Amino acid sequence: MTVQDVTLSGQQLIGAQDVPGTGEEFHGVDPRSGERLEPAYRFGAPADVERAAALAWDAFGTYRETDQETRAAFLETVADRIDGLGTTLTDRVTAETGIPEARVKGELARTTNQLRLFARVVREGSWLGARIDPAIPDRTPLPRPDLRQRKIPLGPVAVFAASNFPLAFSVAGGDTASALAAGAPVVVKAHPSHPGTSELVGRAIRAAVAEHGLPEGTFSLLHGGRELGIALVTDPRIRAVGFTGSRQGGLALVAAAAARPVPIPVYAEMSSVNPVFLLPGALREKAKDLGPAYVASLTTGVGQLCTSPGLVFAIDGDGLDAFVESAGAALQETAVAPMLNPGIQQAYDAGVRRLEALDEVAEVARGGEDQTIACGGRAALFVTDGTAFLANPALQEEVFGAASIVVRVRDQAQLVEIAESLEGQLTATVHATPDDHGEAAELLPKLELIAGRVVFNGWPTGVEVGHAVVHGGPFPATSAPATTSVGTRAIERFLRPVSYQDTPADLLPAELRDGNPLGIWRRVDGELGRD
Amino acid sequence: MTVQDVTLSGQQLIGAQDVPGTGEEFHGVDPRSGERLEPAYRFGAPADVERAAALAWDAFGTYRETDQETRAAFLETVADRIDGLGTTLTDRVTAETGIPEARVKGELARTTNQLRLFARVVREGSWLGARIDPAIPDRTPLPRPDLRQRKIPLGPVAVFAASNFPLAFSVAGGDTASALAAGAPVVVKAHPSHPGTSELVGRAIRAAVAEHGLPEGTFSLLHGGRELGIALVTDPRIRAVGFTGSRQGGLALVAAAAARPVPIPVYAEMSSVNPVFLLPGALREKAKDLGPAYVASLTTGVGQLCTSPGLVFAIDGDGLDAFVESAGAALQETAVAPMLNPGIQQAYDAGVRRLEALDEVAEVARGGEDQTIACGGRAALFVTDGTAFLANPALQEEVFGAASIVVRVRDQAQLVEIAESLEGQLTATVHATPDDHGEAAELLPKLELIAGRVVFNGWPTGVEVGHAVVHGGPFPATSAPATTSVGTRAIERFLRPVSYQDTPADLLPAELRDGNPLGIWRRVDGELGRD
Repeated sequence: MTVQDVTLSGQQLIGAQDVPGTGEEFHGVDPRSGERLEPAYRFGAPADVERAAALAWDAFGTYRETDQETRAAFLETVADRIDGLGTTLTDRVTAETGIPEARVKGELARTTNQLRLFARVVREGSWLGARIDPAIPDRTPLPRPDLRQRKIPLGPVAVFAASNFPLAFSVAGGDTASALAAGAPVVVKAHPSHPGTSELVGRAIRAAVAEHGLPEGTFSLLHGGRELGIALVTDPRIRAVGFTGSRQGGLALVAAAAARPVPIPVYAEMSSVNPVFLLPGALREKAKDLGPAYVASLTTGVGQLCTSPGLVFAIDGDGLDAFVESAGAALQETAVAPMLNPGIQQAYDAGVRRLEALDEVAEVARGGEDQTIACGGRAALFVTDGTAFLANPALQEEVFGAASIVVRVRDQAQLVEIAESLEGQLTATVHATPDDHGEAAELLPKLELIAGRVVFNGWPTGVEVGHAVVHGGPFPATSAPATTSVGTRAIERFLRPVSYQDTPADLLPAELRDGNPLGIWRRVDGELGRD
Repeated sequence: MTVQDVTLSGQQLIGAQDVPGTGEEFHGVDPRSGERLEPAYRFGAPADVERAAALAWDAFGTYRETDQETRAAFLETVADRIDGLGTTLTDRVTAETGIPEARVKGELARTTNQLRLFARVVREGSWLGARIDPAIPDRTPLPRPDLRQRKIPLGPVAVFAASNFPLAFSVAGGDTASALAAGAPVVVKAHPSHPGTSELVGRAIRAAVAEHGLPEGTFSLLHGGRELGIALVTDPRIRAVGFTGSRQGGLALVAAAAARPVPIPVYAEMSSVNPVFLLPGALREKAKDLGPAYVASLTTGVGQLCTSPGLVFAIDGDGLDAFVESAGAALQETAVAPMLNPGIQQAYDAGVRRLEALDEVAEVARGGEDQTIACGGRAALFVTDGTAFLANPALQEEVFGAASIVVRVRDQAQLVEIAESLEGQLTATVHATPDDHGEAAELLPKLELIAGRVVFNGWPTGVEVGHAVVHGGPFPATSAPATTSVGTRAIERFLRPVSYQDTPADLLPAELRDGNPLGIWRRVDGELGRD
C-alpha cells in the first residue's frame, strides 16, 4: 500500500464534507512513464458548485470579519500543514507532473513562504486602505461631514488552478493565499493534471479552517472541466475569479463573467512570450555566456514557465553569430524531460512543427531525444530576421514549452519598431553594458508599456514573491493589466473601498476608529501616519 | 453681442487646432425658455477621433514623463484659468442647463478645488506606488535580485462628460483631473447638452497646455453622439475610459471596450437609487424633521444628482405616518424647476407615469406646476409596501429626477431582506438614534456590500471631494466597483504597476532611485517610509 492509498479519497472537498464526483473518471498520470496513478477522481456536478458557493457565501459574513491576528494565524497554519505533508506531498507532485524533486521542494518552500508573507501583510494592515477625513463642522458654506474609508473583500473567490506550478499556482497558490488574506472564502477548481496533489493540499487547508474554528465554507475544492468552471464563474455568489492558464481558457472565463447579470472581475494570467533584447555591447562582450544562460532559462521546467523566454531580439553584428552558435550548442546538450501531461506535450510538438514549416524560420538546434519518456519535451531553437518577424504576427504566438526564436534585427530602429509591435507580456528583458545605455534608455519606455516586469542583464524565469514584484502585464498577458498575481499587491484584486459618512463610533470597524486601536498606517486628512 | 458671441467658435478643440464638426448642427438650449443658444455646433467625424487620438498618443510619451511639479502646476493653471472665466462661464452654464447661479458657483468652486487637490496629490507622490525590495546577493539557494516597482499611466484616456454636472463631471471634471494627474492625455467627448460650457472650459485647458509647453495632444475636445463615442472607445490608442451617465450608455461603452482586440477598462458611473433606511427610533424622535429634509435632498438639482434618494425604507410604526405626511407637505410646496434638457424631462415624466400606473404604488404628493418653464420637472412622491417592493424588481429602477418612493416595511427582518435584494448603489443611508444601533449594526454589513458610501443621519446628496470619499459602488452603480470617480483615489484608475529588476541606476526613474531623491513615501522591503 502506497502513501497515496492511505491519504487520498479521490473525492471533492466541499466545506467539511467529502463529496464524490459523478462525472467521467480520470486519474493523475505520471508523465515520465505514462502510468495511471490511483485513486480515481471524477468531475463534480452543478450541484457541487451550488453547494460550495452557498457554503462560501455563508462563510463570507463571518470570515471577512475575522480580526487580523486570526486570519494571519490561519494562513500560517495552512503553511505549516502543507509543509508537514513532507514527502507524501512532494512525491505525489513528482509522480503527477514529472517535476524533479529539487524543483518541487523549491516550489513547496515558495508556496508556504507566500502564505506566511500574506500573514505578515494581513498583520501590517495597509491593505485595509484606512483613510479618515475628519468633520469640519464650521466650514462654509456647508459643514464637512466625517468621512472614513476602508477596503472590504468583494466576496467569495473562484480560483482556477494552473498545471505548471502544481503548488505555487494551484490549490494553495498565490490566488488562494491573497484571496484568503483579503477575507474572501475560496472555491478552487483543481487542475485535472494533478488531482492527488490538489487533494493533499486541499485537506491541509480544510484542517486549518477547522483548527481555527472558521466556517467550513471558507474553503472548498472541486474537480471539473470547462462546464463546471463556467458554472462556478456564473454562480451569483462568486464575486471574483483568479485564473492561470491558457489564453483560450482565460478568455472563456472573462466572457462568462462579463455576461453575468452582475459582471465580476476575472484576474486571468494567460500567455506571454517574454521577449529578450540583446544590445550590441552585451553581444560584443558576452555572447558566448549569454547563449548557454538563455538555454538554461528556456529549458527550466521544460519551458513550461509563464515567463519562459520565447523570443530573443538581437541586433545583427559582433557577437550575434557566436550567441546563436553557443545557444545552439547548449541546446543540443539538453536532455529530453517530461512535460506536464500528454495534452501539453502534443500542443508543444504541434507548435514546433508549425515553426518548422515556415519558410522564414530556420532551425538552429534541437535537444536530445529519449523515447522512453512518455511525455518527453524536446527543446527547439529557431532563428528568423526582424523584417520577417514584423511581417508575420503568428511568430508572436506562444509555443508553451522549450521552443524559442532568435530574431536577427537590422538595427536599433528596427528593434524599437519591434518593441512597439509586441503584444502585452509578463516580462521584457534587456541585456546591456554601460555602452548600451543610450539604446536601453530608448527601449525602456516602450518595454514598460508592454510588460509587467522589465529585467536587466538576467533572464525572465524565476519570479520573486515580494512587495515590489509584478507578475502581470497588458493584455493578452493578463485580463487585468493593473494587477499582479504574485507578490503582496495581489491582495488588492479582491478588495474594494467603502466610505462611511458620519458613522457613530460604536458602529465603525476597528480600523477606522479614533485613536487607531489597530496601530495601522492610515491617511488622515491626506497625511499618512500611524498615530 | 453677448459674451458667448465673443468667446465661442462652435468648433472642436483638437490639440492646438479648432476643427469644425461636419455632422448635424445642434445648439445649446436654455431649458427655462426653450431658447436656442448661439453658436451652432456640429458633431465630429471619425477623422476627428483619429486625429485627437493620434495627437494624444504622440503627447503621451512626453506628458507621462513630466515631473511632479510641472504636472501639478499645470493642473493649478487649468484651475486658475477656469476660475478666471468668471461670469462668462457661470452665465453660460445657467443658460445651457437651467442650474441656478448659486449652485453653478458652488460647482465651479468644487471643480477647480478638485483640480488643485489633484495637484497636491501629484506633488505628494504616493500615487507612484514606489516599492523597493533590495537585492540579497548571498541568499541561498539563489540570490535575490533587486526589484523596484512604480506605477505608470495606462495611456490616453477618453472622458465622456455628464449632463448633470456641467463642470464637476464634465470637460475638466473628476475624470479629466485624475487622468491628467496620472500622466494620461485626455480626449473629452463633450455632452451635447452644454456645448458652450464645454468649449469655454476646453479652451481654458488648452491655454494651460500651451502655457506649460506641454504637447498639444495632452488635451482635445470633441463633439459627438453615440457613433463618435464608440469610435473613440475603440481607437487603439485610447487605453481607458471615464464615463458618467445612463446605464444604457455606460454598458454600450463597456461592451465596445471589451470587444476590442485589446480590451480596455471602462470606469462608468451609471445609475443608483440611493436607498435610505429609517429605523424606528429615528422615526419616533424626528419624523417631522426627516420629511422636509428628505424632500430637500430629493429636489436638489431637480433630482438630477447621481446620489438623489429614490427609495426610502421605513419600518411601519410610530412616526411613519408623520414622516410621509411631512414629506408630502414639503413636496407640495416645491416649485417646478427646469430639468437639464427636453430628453431628460420627457424620460422623467414617463418614469413618473410608469409609477402612477402601478396598482401597488400610491401617489402621496406632487410638486407645484408651472407651464412657463420649458423643461419643468415636477417632483413626485409615492408610497408602497415592503412586500410589493420585494415582488416587483421594476421598483428598483432609477427615475432620473425628483421622484421617490417611500416603502413601508413590515419589520426589521423585512428591512434586512430588502437590503439584501437591492442592486449595487453609489450610496446607502441610515437614520438611527442610539436606540437603533442594534438594528443598524445588523444592517450595516449588508449595506456596505451593496454601496460605495454609507451615510448615517444625513442625506446622500452632496459628495465631498477628499481622500476618504468613495463615489462608486457595485454594479450597476458602476462598471468598476473597486474604484471611485470622486476623490483622490480616482487617480488609481489610470495607473498600473511595473516592476524593474536589476535595473542600472542611471536607467531608473527618479522615484525608484537610491536615496529617495523625490522624498516620497516608498515601501522598502515592505516597510513604509520616506528616507
